[in-house]
Amino acid sequence: MTLNPTHDPARLSWLESAHAATTDFPLQNLPYGAFRRAVASPALLGVAIGDRILDLHAAAAAGLLPGTVAAACQQPTLNALMALGAPAWSALRARLSALLGADSCPAGALRDRVAACLVPMREVTMLLPAAIGDYTDFYASVFHATNVGAMFRPGQPLLPNYKWVPIGYHGRSSSIMVSGMLVRRPHGQTRAATEGSPAFGPSQSLDYELELGAFVGPGNQLGEPIPLASAADQLFGVVLLNDWSARDIQSWEYQPLGPFLAKNFATTISPWVVTLEALAPFRVPVFSRPAADPAPLPYLSDPGDATLGGLDLHLEAWLLTPRMRATGAPPHRLSAGNFQKMYWTLAQLLTHHASNGCNLRPGDLLGSGTVSGETKDSRGCLLELTARGTEPIHLPDGETRGFLQDGDEIILRGHAERAGARRIGLGECRGLVVPAAD
Amino acid sequence: MTLNPTHDPARLSWLESAHAATTDFPLQNLPYGAFRRAVASPALLGVAIGDRILDLHAAAAAGLLPGTVAAACQQPTLNALMALGAPAWSALRARLSALLGADSCPAGALRDRVAACLVPMREVTMLLPAAIGDYTDFYASVFHATNVGAMFRPGQPLLPNYKWVPIGYHGRSSSIMVSGMLVRRPHGQTRAATEGSPAFGPSQSLDYELELGAFVGPGNQLGEPIPLASAADQLFGVVLLNDWSARDIQSWEYQPLGPFLAKNFATTISPWVVTLEALAPFRVPVFSRPAADPAPLPYLSDPGDATLGGLDLHLEAWLLTPRMRATGAPPHRLSAGNFQKMYWTLAQLLTHHASNGCNLRPGDLLGSGTVSGETKDSRGCLLELTARGTEPIHLPDGETRGFLQDGDEIILRGHAERAGARRIGLGECRGLVVPAAD
Repeated sequence: MTLNPTHDPARLSWLESAHAATTDFPLQNLPYGAFRRAVASPALLGVAIGDRILDLHAAAAAGLLPGTVAAACQQPTLNALMALGAPAWSALRARLSALLGADSCPAGALRDRVAACLVPMREVTMLLPAAIGDYTDFYASVFHATNVGAMFRPGQPLLPNYKWVPIGYHGRSSSIMVSGMLVRRPHGQTRAATEGSPAFGPSQSLDYELELGAFVGPGNQLGEPIPLASAADQLFGVVLLNDWSARDIQSWEYQPLGPFLAKNFATTISPWVVTLEALAPFRVPVFSRPAADPAPLPYLSDPGDATLGGLDLHLEAWLLTPRMRATGAPPHRLSAGNFQKMYWTLAQLLTHHASNGCNLRPGDLLGSGTVSGETKDSRGCLLELTARGTEPIHLPDGETRGFLQDGDEIILRGHAERAGARRIGLGECRGLVVPAAD
Repeated sequence: MTLNPTHDPARLSWLESAHAATTDFPLQNLPYGAFRRAVASPALLGVAIGDRILDLHAAAAAGLLPGTVAAACQQPTLNALMALGAPAWSALRARLSALLGADSCPAGALRDRVAACLVPMREVTMLLPAAIGDYTDFYASVFHATNVGAMFRPGQPLLPNYKWVPIGYHGRSSSIMVSGMLVRRPHGQTRAATEGSPAFGPSQSLDYELELGAFVGPGNQLGEPIPLASAADQLFGVVLLNDWSARDIQSWEYQPLGPFLAKNFATTISPWVVTLEALAPFRVPVFSRPAADPAPLPYLSDPGDATLGGLDLHLEAWLLTPRMRATGAPPHRLSAGNFQKMYWTLAQLLTHHASNGCNLRPGDLLGSGTVSGETKDSRGCLLELTARGTEPIHLPDGETRGFLQDGDEIILRGHAERAGARRIGLGECRGLVVPAAD
């Protein structure tokens, strides 16, 4: 993907709030989401710009958007736009950048028509951006896999397949929710020791996982794989993803068929889908495998870095406890990592997924797996940060946490920042834990 | 669920083909499906009766159906009807039984109006009966779990959690297809020995799994479990399900997160959804656990057999090879089992699934896992029948099979038959293996 005027860091929007150094949504970002202006009003698509949303339904109705995407922009979810493919996405981005740019849309009648489609972000309710048909979660950080493996299988932390197979499993679509929804602590079977009977009750080891989610574009027909060279064109954009996990349920249930009730009670994603095109300036070489590691098999091999490659994307997890909330203290940062440390790229995950002919559909969601790096402060979940709860985290106000308590809120944040490019952000992915049902 | 006139084995339809001793679809069955009359014509819902389909869209339009279900009967999938719940399902079944019964609908104007809604089954194309949001596959046969475990983990065939936890995992919705669709042999990573590098190529160990699928009815809100006592009211009906499996891919990829590409390339289901109400005469006590086994935990415990309980459902798998097809030989029966041998009931699977608050939606599909019994001829997949291909099956025409070859067709059949009830059938679930993509 080549850089173009939509990436030019010198360009500014005529909307002043898009200039703020701290905004996640400058002119160079233009992420897509779905929102509702009032409880009973219809779902609309929009683009975040500064502290505003450009209502795409209104913009299409006003004749401001390319004819090829106008119908897709008037749907309640992004699925139709995702289905149109990269050339259409690029055309829409170019038009939006032109309409919102100070240089390309000077004060006057056209700017007034665009301004009439803007909605204050604080006045809307964000919705899930797509109808998610299938959700797949991967396990693409070798550091996370090694750390977790050491706890569940001390004798063999990293299984023999890890460096060959992008390990993944199917997750639950129905319980994916948008940032801001409450997360109820799940009940489940757990067994305290390695002997004896299990018991059923609220999880005592509730955890989060800091992940990146990627939405699939046009997809493939059943039986037709997606070569790595075209994988990048199949990825619409990314969100922050919190793969809530009940570790005590997981350790008891997960053999031999993998995680099930330990994960499927809730998955939270951020509302704004940042496109792969917006992230083009932040593409970096793929993760550098240690010399002793095997090269990927040919179908996953991209010696020329011609496809998506690595992404220099800074990701953080923050905790806000009830006491912090009561005292007005700010959230505490639990970890900070970078997506370029992942062992497998998004393109490799997608190509592997379709390599057996499995059909991916527009709006399908791929989770990366927990983003952890090699240092302790880059571990993306409490399981790793607290050594399964045995080494609790000490918070600035004197509190400690092994796992999450009721009332705790997890806030995921992410941004991309590099010399020669405008910083863009992913927004926030928030979820507050509420007590288990009676 | 109490028996009522719709179950009366003495009642006959005025449609002669529904009397045949061999028909799967007598007046007492009345299963639901979706079909298309021509390539470009719309999807319609229908009820199988003998060799005909009652077009529910036409019947509703003609004012023949209860007002509460008329709109749901005019949808292209069963999801809306599934969402209405057991009282509505029961009312519709009672009306259909009355309209199609010789005693209740004598020759005359009403019967003529019903007859005008009948379509010959051989003239239509059957479709997936529902839009399947999430598909979950369980592992509910202790015999299957023990047999397979012995091959993958000789030292510990049955893991410690098996008799406590109804083991399940999320499957792939996008690749579920209706009976009759071709199944392409998947590519994948496999490793021949326990050392060395894997290779990528067509699976050499393609297998089927004989399962029962169950469609979810109204479902539950996120965070709200479904007590076992109301689980039966949440189950709309059942189909035959073939969980195609690539064993060589599976054994290399499945640790630690479970099956993924080994399963998600294809799942085939039979087109006719036989309702739980139609199966009411075939309810039997739950599987009798050996005395040494633990009792289910209270949330899965139903000492009074008040809920769904076991199902006396005879299930078979048949093979038709290219040579058999060429010589006009009939299919060969590979196995015959019974669903009452399952360690967990459908109600227990559903209640366990929602026990952590995971939300189930109308049209979600639950697979039972391979239905195997204690005898060798009741093993529901080739992995078990051939000891992982090492003891090939000898077919009547001299052929042998360890795993499936290109051109092989697997045909699943099932029926319920008991003294005092009319035999009802599940129809067929067929899938023919075609060669891997180039």
